[in-house]
Amino acid sequence: MKKSIGRLVSILYRKNQVYLDIALKPLNITAAELPFIARLFARDGVSQEYLSSYLSIDKAATAKAVKSLALKGYVRKDKNPSDKRANQIYITEYALRQKDEIMKRLREWTEILTQGIDKAEIDTMHTVLEKMVNRVEDWEAHRHGEDG
Amino acid sequence: MKKSIGRLVSILYRKNQVYLDIALKPLNITAAELPFIARLFARDGVSQEYLSSYLSIDKAATAKAVKSLALKGYVRKDKNPSDKRANQIYITEYALRQKDEIMKRLREWTEILTQGIDKAEIDTMHTVLEKMVNRVEDWEAHRHGEDG
Repeated sequence: MKKSIGRLVSILYRKNQVYLDIALKPLNITAAELPFIARLFARDGVSQEYLSSYLSIDKAATAKAVKSLALKGYVRKDKNPSDKRANQIYITEYALRQKDEIMKRLREWTEILTQGIDKAEIDTMHTVLEKMVNRVEDWEAHRHGEDG
Repeated sequence: MKKSIGRLVSILYRKNQVYLDIALKPLNITAAELPFIARLFARDGVSQEYLSSYLSIDKAATAKAVKSLALKGYVRKDKNPSDKRANQIYITEYALRQKDEIMKRLREWTEILTQGIDKAEIDTMHTVLEKMVNRVEDWEAHRHGEDG
């Protein structure tokens, strides 16, 4: 039986997590924590709610990852100057010093994944994956619209 | 910044889980449990170790899902006739009666994902996803070879 796209994505995701746990262990980062660091590299000083929503990771798992990353020195929490009740999450100097090493390990993974596959095919897959993510986001927006 | 394939796969996977949790709720199946049912539809009467390895889901999460599915009446555990210590997992008659409904909901998801995307592009993506899963499996086999 031909595997569905959902199933292939699930397999690849789980293998991705296994790989990242191994590859990032020397840096004391888990696969579950990586998306938070990667997001903060791109956009620093954001709320926990933003991270949870942007990454589609539930609030409990987000809180757990942020807490763990703070203990390891990768992020720090600070009061939001415009709203004293809300915390903002910032990337640390220490994390920025590890950035090249993290990115190198991520590139190695992409190389394993894409080895021997035609560049044009990979570009198509990249485009289709992006379109699918957009489709789902449209569907979510529509569904939330129906709720309200 | 262009999103990496790993990141797109992660986003799609998480959105997939959110969707499946909602779509399968009336059937009392979670996104985390679905891969086990789907595998048993394809190959019935297998060990828990086989399910864990085939699906790349760790032993603890596999045990949890199988136990929950047994309580819900979707699977049952039976002694392996050739090895009395080992349990075999079987799909139930009840699960088989829900199969059409489960498959329908999975097809609806595929339709959301692929809506308006060129068929040839989706075929390419499917092929590339399969190739990537194979690359990772080669890499895993190689790594285990180095361990031994």
